[in-house]
This record gives sequence, structure tokens and C-alpha cells, in this order.
Amino acid sequence: MSFAIRSKPNTHRAVKKNVNAPLANRSETKVAVIGGSGYVGEELVRLLLQHPYADLAAVTSRQFAGKTLADIFPRLSHHQKAGDIRFGASNPAQLAQMAQVIFLALPHGFAAEFTKPLVQTGARIVDLSADFRIKDPKIYKEFYGNDHSAPDLLGEAVYGLPEIYRAEISHANLVACPGCYPTSILLPLLPLIREKVVSLASILVTSLSGVTGAGRKVETDYLFAECNESIRPYGVPKHRHLSEIEEQLSAFAGKKVTIQFTPHLVPVNRGIITTIYVDPSKEIDAGSIATIYQKAYGDEPFVRLLGAERFPDTKNVSGTNFIDIAWRLDLRTGRAILMSAIDNIVKGASGQAIQCFNLMRGYPETTGLQIP
Amino acid sequence: MSFAIRSKPNTHRAVKKNVNAPLANRSETKVAVIGGSGYVGEELVRLLLQHPYADLAAVTSRQFAGKTLADIFPRLSHHQKAGDIRFGASNPAQLAQMAQVIFLALPHGFAAEFTKPLVQTGARIVDLSADFRIKDPKIYKEFYGNDHSAPDLLGEAVYGLPEIYRAEISHANLVACPGCYPTSILLPLLPLIREKVVSLASILVTSLSGVTGAGRKVETDYLFAECNESIRPYGVPKHRHLSEIEEQLSAFAGKKVTIQFTPHLVPVNRGIITTIYVDPSKEIDAGSIATIYQKAYGDEPFVRLLGAERFPDTKNVSGTNFIDIAWRLDLRTGRAILMSAIDNIVKGASGQAIQCFNLMRGYPETTGLQIP
Amino acid sequence: MSFAIRSKPNTHRAVKKNVNAPLANRSETKVAVIGGSGYVGEELVRLLLQHPYADLAAVTSRQFAGKTLADIFPRLSHHQKAGDIRFGASNPAQLAQMAQVIFLALPHGFAAEFTKPLVQTGARIVDLSADFRIKDPKIYKEFYGNDHSAPDLLGEAVYGLPEIYRAEISHANLVACPGCYPTSILLPLLPLIREKVVSLASILVTSLSGVTGAGRKVETDYLFAECNESIRPYGVPKHRHLSEIEEQLSAFAGKKVTIQFTPHLVPVNRGIITTIYVDPSKEIDAGSIATIYQKAYGDEPFVRLLGAERFPDTKNVSGTNFIDIAWRLDLRTGRAILMSAIDNIVKGASGQAIQCFNLMRGYPETTGLQIP
Amino acid sequence: MSFAIRSKPNTHRAVKKNVNAPLANRSETKVAVIGGSGYVGEELVRLLLQHPYADLAAVTSRQFAGKTLADIFPRLSHHQKAGDIRFGASNPAQLAQMAQVIFLALPHGFAAEFTKPLVQTGARIVDLSADFRIKDPKIYKEFYGNDHSAPDLLGEAVYGLPEIYRAEISHANLVACPGCYPTSILLPLLPLIREKVVSLASILVTSLSGVTGAGRKVETDYLFAECNESIRPYGVPKHRHLSEIEEQLSAFAGKKVTIQFTPHLVPVNRGIITTIYVDPSKEIDAGSIATIYQKAYGDEPFVRLLGAERFPDTKNVSGTNFIDIAWRLDLRTGRAILMSAIDNIVKGASGQAIQCFNLMRGYPETTGLQIP
Repeated sequence: MSFAIRSKPNTHRAVKKNVNAPLANRSETKVAVIGGSGYVGEELVRLLLQHPYADLAAVTSRQFAGKTLADIFPRLSHHQKAGDIRFGASNPAQLAQMAQVIFLALPHGFAAEFTKPLVQTGARIVDLSADFRIKDPKIYKEFYGNDHSAPDLLGEAVYGLPEIYRAEISHANLVACPGCYPTSILLPLLPLIREKVVSLASILVTSLSGVTGAGRKVETDYLFAECNESIRPYGVPKHRHLSEIEEQLSAFAGKKVTIQFTPHLVPVNRGIITTIYVDPSKEIDAGSIATIYQKAYGDEPFVRLLGAERFPDTKNVSGTNFIDIAWRLDLRTGRAILMSAIDNIVKGASGQAIQCFNLMRGYPETTGLQIP
Repeated sequence: MSFAIRSKPNTHRAVKKNVNAPLANRSETKVAVIGGSGYVGEELVRLLLQHPYADLAAVTSRQFAGKTLADIFPRLSHHQKAGDIRFGASNPAQLAQMAQVIFLALPHGFAAEFTKPLVQTGARIVDLSADFRIKDPKIYKEFYGNDHSAPDLLGEAVYGLPEIYRAEISHANLVACPGCYPTSILLPLLPLIREKVVSLASILVTSLSGVTGAGRKVETDYLFAECNESIRPYGVPKHRHLSEIEEQLSAFAGKKVTIQFTPHLVPVNRGIITTIYVDPSKEIDAGSIATIYQKAYGDEPFVRLLGAERFPDTKNVSGTNFIDIAWRLDLRTGRAILMSAIDNIVKGASGQAIQCFNLMRGYPETTGLQIP
Repeated sequence: MSFAIRSKPNTHRAVKKNVNAPLANRSETKVAVIGGSGYVGEELVRLLLQHPYADLAAVTSRQFAGKTLADIFPRLSHHQKAGDIRFGASNPAQLAQMAQVIFLALPHGFAAEFTKPLVQTGARIVDLSADFRIKDPKIYKEFYGNDHSAPDLLGEAVYGLPEIYRAEISHANLVACPGCYPTSILLPLLPLIREKVVSLASILVTSLSGVTGAGRKVETDYLFAECNESIRPYGVPKHRHLSEIEEQLSAFAGKKVTIQFTPHLVPVNRGIITTIYVDPSKEIDAGSIATIYQKAYGDEPFVRLLGAERFPDTKNVSGTNFIDIAWRLDLRTGRAILMSAIDNIVKGASGQAIQCFNLMRGYPETTGLQIP
Repeated sequence: MSFAIRSKPNTHRAVKKNVNAPLANRSETKVAVIGGSGYVGEELVRLLLQHPYADLAAVTSRQFAGKTLADIFPRLSHHQKAGDIRFGASNPAQLAQMAQVIFLALPHGFAAEFTKPLVQTGARIVDLSADFRIKDPKIYKEFYGNDHSAPDLLGEAVYGLPEIYRAEISHANLVACPGCYPTSILLPLLPLIREKVVSLASILVTSLSGVTGAGRKVETDYLFAECNESIRPYGVPKHRHLSEIEEQLSAFAGKKVTIQFTPHLVPVNRGIITTIYVDPSKEIDAGSIATIYQKAYGDEPFVRLLGAERFPDTKNVSGTNFIDIAWRLDLRTGRAILMSAIDNIVKGASGQAIQCFNLMRGYPETTGLQIP
């Protein structure tokens, strides 16, 4: 069945903090970033510059070719390397010689083209685009509008959600980092689906995202005066991220899951709040939700369980790799409400990519992410 | 039955722009505002100062007693009256002598106390608090925690949603203006419920509100640095506004309706976006929703129907008395998604109060609200 | 001398609210807007649509040709005309046939080209660009980089600051509306210079502007995430607006004045705060400043004098045509500090243009500007 | 003379990165924070929790006594210690037993009371209030309104600006951390004054500050809706910080210096932009300013010299301990313009306190501050 991503996606509890991961290798890893000029790319560069075991060898950008990192990212200008490294061209063969792990921070559709030649060189890839998040090329085409340009690699790619696919990520050559909305939706939902306490037809999700979620797109819609003092829904009813969310949910449920999802744009730089409504499939109480989450995430370094009394707030996670999860049971309606907060650029993109990188290279999973 | 608010709430189409309203009386009306020191009170004072037929006679505030309006509201300081009028004490007998229509912009619980003596003087009241929005004192107690202090007036009060209760408001002596969330939720929902195209058990609402929605509360939670760069849900699962929302929905549906509602706080000064999910009770398409809205609101001066392709945005309604309504049918899930935008302080409070005032006094309904 | 703009710029007190203006003509005036797609153009269209005596006949925009005003400005979609009028091409001959007064809201450099043929048709022009603000074409070239394309019209143009040039504006065929910074700087400074209480070499100005001041420029620098949580100086030391500011100051002073000016970009949509430091040229006290301002602006409908104890705040003027002016004398340093607040889009651009239009057409000067 | 703070304040170049500091002691230091409930206190707690050599032993707060750090600072809730440590009472004797270095993050006026008994116990103090920043108790009284309660300690206190007083801080028992405005003003000015290239009577400063600069004050003025979409000057003409700024400038100049200073409040959470205007006292060019800064700060880990072409931007320093400094020479006016950006909570308060702490304890000066 198309929703059967892999036979045992939920084996991560056996992994227990990398015990099955490759032997710890604290030597440095040479890394490169392709397409490092957007918000995700900048944050990735920032995290790699301060990562104790990453040695940033190259950053590419068509737009900024020839400029130094410091020219474009004045925030990072104190780093020696930011003054030394110039944005270069994206020659796969060259990059593969310079770096053991290559991060792709390209727009959707562009990553697939680069990945094929890179994979052939033996480089390991962490792709932050949507290109390898979906297993089924038909779904890819349905949501992204074109045929996938490297469909043979889809089976090899591992969905880069460490809390769910830790073991697989450790050994993967091609990691497809989840989108920001999917991260904020899947982490609260998957444990409840795994425990079969959710009525699958009932899942309804509202998300609120900061403006960096749109990337550094130079379009009227994202100008300051268009976003400030503005709140707006968009992408209703069929946002592209539904493809990967539903594929993952279906894999866990063992059957096709279709959900409702409405994103909203909100005037903050960073952060996503996701509010999920589900009908319990059997009688549960807030305590049993707590137990399920404790079992799933009790040992996770980047999941903070807020419980049934506190609320998530993006300001508590911004600049960090945390996801904060809270929940309520509504006795009036019988529904469970799950709420999460992440920084869309960190846990929703670059931080999660570093978390995957750490797993792939056998470094402690939190290396370079101890913020604050 | 407790949800039968009045026999024919949906008779407003017969009213047709005030034709049954009291004969137009373009003489000035003396008005007073009790509790005019919050954001709602300030906007009310602003609107009354520029209203061609309102003669503001008094504004009361315990906190600012003795100061002029101009002292506290520098934005209004160019008005002659803002320099002349001083915040006074709230003596019902005195106020009733000074004003024909009295606006109450007091916190919930305080309005009921003032209303009783005022009503006895023959003054007509526009109350912006929650105190008279609910018909059933048991529901009041359930949601507000205390016994209602003037339960005998509950039956007399008219719910101040002009698009729904235009005729009743015209003749009312006590108008209870709806809350901001209820306005943004009821106006999109009621026509669909009236036409029986909505499965009543399925209604689920997410709202996003600007910070003035909390009033001018001097609390840590509403400090700039606590709200800026912050997004957060709150009031889950049983926000107080559910009481009036569900009572109105029940009255229209003819049976008890319970809904899901999650408000979120978002860093804008003004504005509410409400996104409503419903299961259609029979087969409908986007066109039939359009027809229903056109029938309900086609002639309404303050309802703008955006249709099935555009999205509401708070920046398009801020500072105005408009509600913008858009909708989608999701062919994947079968749900209808209704989206609305209002300015919480104008259409969600003070502007709507002026709209009611115009109806009560036979002025053209848009008088003093032609902004922009 | 080049700084002698006109022999008696300060004759406006004799004008006394339009007594010398053309006989009041309350018939409607047909108007057109060329280049109406930016923030200034949108606000101008909004003000003209609600102006009781303006009949908007055409709006042009290359970018949006064929679209209706309502398509591009959803905020205005309730206006009948916003649905009817489509952005057209800018054919001077056609426009001159359609409109008696034509507003130019074009980027600097483009307005001059359109003005020449329009003036020849007999249309009266209100230009919101910088093209006709400067008398001396050499200064124009120094600050704008190219030769002026219609230098012969420079002498005819009247600087559209009604508080200073009311009589001249009334009779002008070509009004050059001041920039936003110049408005916020000249109105506080000119009365003190006229009264010769300022040491001319000492003038130093800091301004803080909201982001709409940059126009609707689709550039990375003005993206939400680049401006939000950002404060930055720019345009130091020779901002283009210095040209018109210094020319006006010089005209009043009777000799060449050079000032220091630093603008800063601040994350608000609208508003400018200007703080001006001057050395008094003779002994003055706060009271004598008050007297000078009272004499200059005591009867002005759009100038609010805050005195020596209150502070201006952009939130008190946003959406209005007011300028708020406050001042202090620093006994420690001997300097006077002048502070002003305006809405850069209204008093700094479109509102001031309407004020000029009212003067030109003999309408009461505040017509269509009574907000709030 | 009262402005002679110490004979050789500018000896820091000899210190050369702690070479004269106490022998490096990488054992942990027990620390406590008194008054840790404001924004500065929270940031200090955050920095101490992640400091590799600091062992946070106690945090006091009257307001939150009994609550855990995690209760009040949910952002820090993942730290083991944040769950363990409860806000306690401020008993000097007890605290002195628990901690070797005690940070005071109390409002002005309160710190002095605590300091006296603490100093007697032998604890070393880092005070973040204004209480010990001024040498002359008469100036203290002039600006703060009351007699100093521990005037005998004023002589002992070292002004905690490491770039200027590095050697003195290393050996100090009582460090008075500079205010946020003074940090942003003194660091750009002092090297130019030291090199005698500034006309002392000409110094004029405009600063723009984010709202956390006011602390976590629960006052109407700092509510979200009062600050958002608001820009305003305040504290003109005699802000309290002038006392320490002028005392420091005078010490460097060798004679009394009086400056002009205007702070403005701007709607960002964090950050100060300071723009300084000075008349050169002799002929200089941009290159000679660069040389002076290079000599003063070329080796400083937290000073980034942007030069004569780039502009500082608060978003490039927020969350960091950097000060970015840029400059221009205005050939038209002859003035030099110095511009700086800092995070008011980090380099303007808590980060600078950690920097001092590192010096006092012989740790590398950047320890725990390597962000990003």
C-alpha cells in the first residue's frame, strides 16, 4: 500500500540515544551548504560555524556568488570563516571533493537535480527542501505539479524527524528534513496515532506561522507593511505540506489518512503555533495522553512536555531546537486539543538538519544545538 | 427550551434598512459613556465625537476622574469637547438627566449594577460588556462564575448584532453588544445554520486576536515584550464567549449546539481572524454558500463577501466597521471552511455599538461609521 | 541669491483661512491620479473616494493596468467606484480631458516628464514626487544625480506646505508637495527661523520613520523579517530630502543654511518622529517658543501644539493629517529641542496633497480630512 | 576634580586579554542572583545556566518567592536547575555563604542597601543597577533624587566596561555594570576623546531603544498596544543615564563634559541604536577615525568595527554581546557621526556582567558568551 513507508517506523525507542549509531567519531566533518542565501541557509551556516565538529568548507549561492558570508550575513561577521568563505557556484563534483556531508537549502524542485550527481559521489546529503520527503511520486506530482526528477532516490531517502526515525537517519545517505508545519504537526500526533487513540477521520489542524516561513522571498506579500498589523489565512484548502503530513500519518496508521489543515500568516519573524483537534477513538483522559507522550518523548532532548495546564508560546522556543507540546481534553465536546510551538527556522528546518547531521556522524545528538 | 431566544430571530430581511424603524429623527441625541477609559471606551468616545447627531455630554471613569478626555486620549486632543469634558463619577441619576442614550464600557460584572437604576430612569442603554448578552442566568453563572445581579433584565435585553436583530435593536431599551469573537463567528455561521446546511455537531472554530482584545489590562501578560514575537493559544477549552456564541447558535438551530473554540493571541494591535470548519449536512458547493451569503448579507452595508478565492486579512478591516467573509469547500475532506476578519474594537465593540445606536435613534445605520 | 525662493514666503497669516482664496466652489472637481499603486497612491485614492467634492475619474498604473482598484486595494473594495475604475495607462491628453486636477504619485524623476504636457493642457497638478520641490536645478542635480527634465517649470511650482504657502497654493497650477521628512522638520523649524531666534549653523535633526516611508518597494531591505526587530540609521550623511529642507530654510533665513540630518528606519507601518536640536541665537525661554508657535500655528487646523511638557507619539497622529509639535529648553546645554510627529503617508504625503487640493479649489481646507 | 575618576583609565591596552588577570582558575564559581525576575535577571540566569564555570546556587525574588525558575521562565524549563532552584528571599549572610560572586539585578536604589552587608562578608559583587556607577554622591543625588545610602563604597566600585577598565575589573570586589545607553554611547566616544579629536562642547546623542530597556515594568506605557505602532521621544532633556555618561566622559577628557542626549522608545523587544554627532577638534578624516578605533578595539572580542560604509542594525547584534560601531564624516557640515548597535539586555546589561565576571574570576573573557 502506498502509505506503508517502511515496515517499522516506530522502532526508535529501541535506539535509545544513538546506541546503535555508528561509533562516535569526534573528528571533524567537512560540510558544504548548497543554496545558503535564504533564512534557512543563513541559520544553517550559523549553526555550522559554531558546531564543534563541523568544518564548513563551502557555501554556494547563485545570487551572491563572489561575496563573502560576512558581506551577506553581517550578523555572522565576527567569524573568521565568514570573512574568508565566498559564496561559490554549485559544482557537484567539486563540492563532493570538499565535503563529506552536503546540506541542500534550495527551493523545492531544485534539490532533486543536485542530489543525483552528489549521491553518486558518495557524499551524504541532508536536504532541507520538499523534494525527497514524499515516497510516492504520484503524490509529489499532485501537490508540486511536476514529475519528480529523481524518483529512484525517493525510496532511499529517510524522513529526517529524529524523534521518529532516529535509527534510520543514523545510517542514511540521503535525509529529507521535514517541513516546518509537518514537524509541528507530526510530533504531537504520531504518538497518539501509534497508540490508536485517535479517530483518523477527525484530524483537523490550524497553524500560525511567522513570516520567515515564506523564505526570503522578495515579493509584495512579504513586505513589512503588508505583514505588520496583518493576520491572514492562506493556502486553504490544499497546502503542499499536506502531502508529507498525510503520508507520514498514513504510514503510522496503516491506512490512508486525510486531514484538514489551515495555515495562517502572523507578524512575527519566527515561530509556529499548531493547534490540533482530534476525536479520541476510545475513552481517554488527559492523564492517558500524558502517559503516551511521556513514553514517546520522556527521554527526548528537544521535546518539552508542557502538560494539560500550560500553553505553548513561540517566544519560549524561538532561537532553539525545542518543540513544546501541551494538550487538553474538552469535556464538553469530547475532543482532545494538542498544541505545539517550534521555531520554524530551527526545529522546523536548520536545527533539525543539524540534529540529523549529528546522528549521521555519530556525534551526541544535541551537539551545537545547546541554545539557550 | 432554553435555546429559544426569541420566536423569529431571522426576520431582519423584512426590516430592509430601517423601514420599520422609528421615524428618522435627525435632531441630536445626548449621550454618555460610563467607564470610558479602556480601548473600547476610547474608540467609543472617538466615534461619538465625530458622530454628526451624537452630543457627548459626559464620560465617567473612576481611574481618571477629574482629568479631561484630552489628557488621557491625546489622539483626540484637537476636539473642542475633548478639552472641555472631564471624566466624572458614575451617578446613574445624574447621568440619566444628562443623556438619552448611555453606553456602558465597563468590565463584565460591573455593567449589570449600573444598568438597573439607569433603566428605571427611562434612559436607553447600549451595554458593551457581557452582562446582558446571555438569556439564561444559569449559563451566565456557569461561564462567569457568579449569580447574575439583574436577572430580570435579561429578557428585555436585545443582542446587538444589527445584521441579525435589526428590528429588535431599533425598539430596544437595553442592547447587549456582542463580544468581538462572537461577532466574528456568528455572522459567518448563522446564515448557514438558518439554511440548515451545517451539521451542528461539527462546528469547530479557531480565532486569532490582536492584543487590544484583552482590554487595557495592566498585567505582565500584555506587556509589549511579552506579546511581541509571541504567538500563543489561551482560554482552551472553555472560553467565556462560548456562552453567548452557543446560545445564539442554539436559538437559530432550534436545539442545543456545542462548538469547539480556540482563541490565540497574536502581536497586532487590532483585528480578529476567525476560521470556522463545518461538515455540510447535505451536499452543497461553494456556489450555494455564495447564494446563502448573498441572500443574507447582499444589502448589508458592513458585510463584505470575499467569495471562494480571496482571503480575509485584518489589515483590510482595521479601523473600520466591516466584516470580511470568505469561504472554501474542501473537496478532499468534504468540509466547508468559513473565514472572517473584523476589527475587534470597531465591528467587535464600539463601531457595532454605534451601529446599534443609529438604529435605536432612527439615524441611517452607517452614520458616523463611514471609515474609510 | 539661490536661496531666495520668493520675496515673502511668510505671508500666510494674512490669508487667514482662505479669505483670499478663489470663491468657494462646492461643485465637484474631476480628479485623476497618475501612478496610484504605491502606499501614497493608495492613501490618495482612499482620501479622494471619501472626499465630498472630488470625483475620481481615473487612476493609472503600468503595473496594474486593467485591474480594478478593488482588486489591488481590497481595503477599499466597498466603494462602488473601486469596483468600477480600472487602472489605466497614463496618456496626458486623455487624462487632461477627464480631470481638472491631476495628482502625480510617481517615483522621483518620472513626474517631471508627465507634468510638462499636462500643464500645457491647462490641468492643475499636485505632484507628490520630489521633482518640483526644488527651485535650483543645480541643487536638483547634486542630490538626484541627473539634469532636471523640465527646469522651466521649477519657477512656477509652489511648495505645497499649506501652513507656510497657503495663498500661493490657492492660485497655483503646479503644487509640489513636500516630502515626509521635510514636512516634519520644516513646520517646527520655520517659525523659529522667521523670528530669528535660531543660530543657523547649529541645526541638527534626527528622524525616525516607519517602513512605508520607503514606498512599496519590493526589495529585500523592506521584507518583514528584515525590518521587524530591526532599528537602523541610513542615508547618512547626505539624504536627498536635505535639498528641499535646506532650500526652504535658506529662503526663510535669507542666507544659505546647511543642516545635519540622520534618518532611521523603525518597525512601524506609519509615522515619523523628528527631533531637532538648535542653539538659540539669543536668550529665549520655553515660554517664548510657545509664543512663537502660538502666533504661527494657533489657528491652524492640522497643527497641534503639545507644549513643553508632553511628548509627541506617532500613534497619536497615525491615520490623520495632524502634526504634533512639542519642545524643551535644556538648561544644562542651552539648546532648544523641538520634536514633531506626523503620519508620513497622510500629513507627509497624501493628506497634505488633499489639503493643497482643497486650497486650490476653494473648498474648506479640512474637507475630507476630518479623521478622526 | 570631580571628573577625575581614576588616574589612568585608559591603560587597558596594556592588559591585552587578561595577561595581568588573576591566574586562570577553571574550577567552578558558585554564584547567586539577587532580584532575578526582570528581563535583565532572566537573561543573567540564562547566561549563568549555560556558563561552563558558573554554578548557580540561588536566585532571589520577593515577587516570585517559592516558585521555581522554570515556573517563571518557561523558556529555560529544560535546564535541570531551572526546575530545582526556587526563588528565595534575599538574606545577605546566607547568600554570602552560598556564593562567591553575587549579581544584583535590582531596581536603582535597592542595590546599595544589599551591597554593604554583602561586601562585608567578602563576597564579590557585580551590580547591574545604577547605584555604584557614579563616583560623586552629589551627582547621584542630583540625578536620582535621594542621598546615596552607601557613599563610602562609591570609591571602591569599578565601572564595569571591560573594553575600558579591564584590569580594574579583574581585581575588583564591586563592579558597577554600565547602563545600556551609556554602553552604546561611551564605547564609540571614549577612543575619540582619548585621542583629543573631539570638540567636547559639541557632543550630541540620539538613542533609540527597544521596550525591554524599561524593564519588566507593569505600567500602561509599556503595554503592547501602547508601544506597538508607536515611536516616541522621552526623558528629555535630563535622562538619568546622563550622570554616568558625563562622569566617564569627563574622566577621559580631564574636564567637565556636558552632552545633549535624547532617548526614543521604539517597538522592538531588544536593541539600542545610538547616533552621536561631534565636531572634530582638529582636522580628521574617516581614515583617522578608523585608525583610532582599530587601535582601541582591534583586538576586542565583542567590538565589531563596521567602518565608514556599512550601517549598524540591531538585528545583527540581538541576542549577542557585540557592539557594532560605524562612522561617517560629513563633508558638508564638518561633523563626525558615530553610530552603534547593541542588545540592551546583553551587552547593555547581563552579557556585560558575565564578561566582568569572567575577568574577575580569570576565565577567558568570552566564556559563556559565544553567541551566536
